[in-house]
Amino acid sequence: MTGKIYIIGLGPGPAGWLTPEASAALEKVTDLIGYFTYVDRIPPRDGLTIHGSDNRVELDRSRHALQLACEGKIVGVVSGGDPGVFAMAAAVLEALEHGPQEWRALDIEVLPGISAMQAAAARLGAPLGGDFCAISLSDNLKPWSLIERRLQAASDGDFVLALYNPASKARPKQIFDAFALLRKLRPAQTPVAFARAVGRPDERIVLTTLGEADPGVADMSTLVMIGATTTHLIERPEGRPFVLTPRSYEANR
Amino acid sequence: MTGKIYIIGLGPGPAGWLTPEASAALEKVTDLIGYFTYVDRIPPRDGLTIHGSDNRVELDRSRHALQLACEGKIVGVVSGGDPGVFAMAAAVLEALEHGPQEWRALDIEVLPGISAMQAAAARLGAPLGGDFCAISLSDNLKPWSLIERRLQAASDGDFVLALYNPASKARPKQIFDAFALLRKLRPAQTPVAFARAVGRPDERIVLTTLGEADPGVADMSTLVMIGATTTHLIERPEGRPFVLTPRSYEANR
Repeated sequence: MTGKIYIIGLGPGPAGWLTPEASAALEKVTDLIGYFTYVDRIPPRDGLTIHGSDNRVELDRSRHALQLACEGKIVGVVSGGDPGVFAMAAAVLEALEHGPQEWRALDIEVLPGISAMQAAAARLGAPLGGDFCAISLSDNLKPWSLIERRLQAASDGDFVLALYNPASKARPKQIFDAFALLRKLRPAQTPVAFARAVGRPDERIVLTTLGEADPGVADMSTLVMIGATTTHLIERPEGRPFVLTPRSYEANR
Repeated sequence: MTGKIYIIGLGPGPAGWLTPEASAALEKVTDLIGYFTYVDRIPPRDGLTIHGSDNRVELDRSRHALQLACEGKIVGVVSGGDPGVFAMAAAVLEALEHGPQEWRALDIEVLPGISAMQAAAARLGAPLGGDFCAISLSDNLKPWSLIERRLQAASDGDFVLALYNPASKARPKQIFDAFALLRKLRPAQTPVAFARAVGRPDERIVLTTLGEADPGVADMSTLVMIGATTTHLIERPEGRPFVLTPRSYEANR
């Protein structure tokens, strides 16, 4: 069995954020598997078979990749962002765990990528200068009560919060429920940013406060950043203020 | 004033993890500022002045960068990993906030990089497939009581934990104190990984459990990953088991 699986992080979109390691793997693979939105970023070439699939079929896609690798193919499974963060690395290993024993002998390599919270942080200044939590708001795979428990715990610990998958057409309501809860847990003046499609042509950043935010601006391409009590703005003569969570805690309390 | 500051993430070390955006910026800068360990990674070239400095002088280094940019230089401030995660992006903005007003008019751009937890996660499998927290264990800039409160909160929320800066020669004790607390908060069989210098020649991964871990193996180059209750191992016929935190919660409870 000489097949291999690369689980490849494409980053947020722009070529400048695609690692050389990921680029090299994209040149090596015989088969590319992923959500249409992501495989569509990869230019076709001779010897490469592209298998696009719909969103929310991550396990089918993973089993397909594992099967192709068993047949000797060099398979690339692509994720936007970092495949290790709420993405295809976990899906492939979930499929592997419940599949035939031979899958466990496959050579599988995860290639990290720039994740949405890092792209958002870079645009905003330094919101992740202090301790932070990343939470996926999707309750497709976990109960909403767990998400509430985690929003509560993250606030008890005064962590900066990076919310992934805040809303979709099928799940428009969660981000409103999350904000209703967070407004009980954090001060109204807490900085909040909706960072949409950072690095792509349709990038849009909305910087506001927890009290004034309209959660309705969030969609599947949005990373929502919510400050800790130390997070604050630095005004500039021109342009959007910087968002800073200082490394130091007491100095700002 | 035509100067500029790029705050550049070098990633964990290998060239394959340095983004093209960061590479391009390194070609453009006239002055490079950073901790010796990081600027030493950059080959000298004509027209580039390298200002190496010791660790733990981040604010001095930041003021130096801001001053040079005011003089019209194109300054690169380099960080290992992602400058947005517990690193130089926050330090530069802290210096800017408390400096002369003219600094606020400077053009400052943060270029994200692959962070240590992502490199560690890629090697381990998919430990960050579920919600997670990142905590810096250094109490140089925040009280230890806050770190304890955050370890408690992260455990209340059953988050995966990525611990940065677990130990240094001057701070050998914190990681032992953190483990003593975490052993009261999480089951003894919780998977724990010490991922040291991932991607560099001296990479070393120790995979163990919370009950059996020796916190003494952690140093400044180590990222410590501690599982949630759903995190578990997938054994393989050869090689280290994969570490998986499934995206799904109830399926593994």
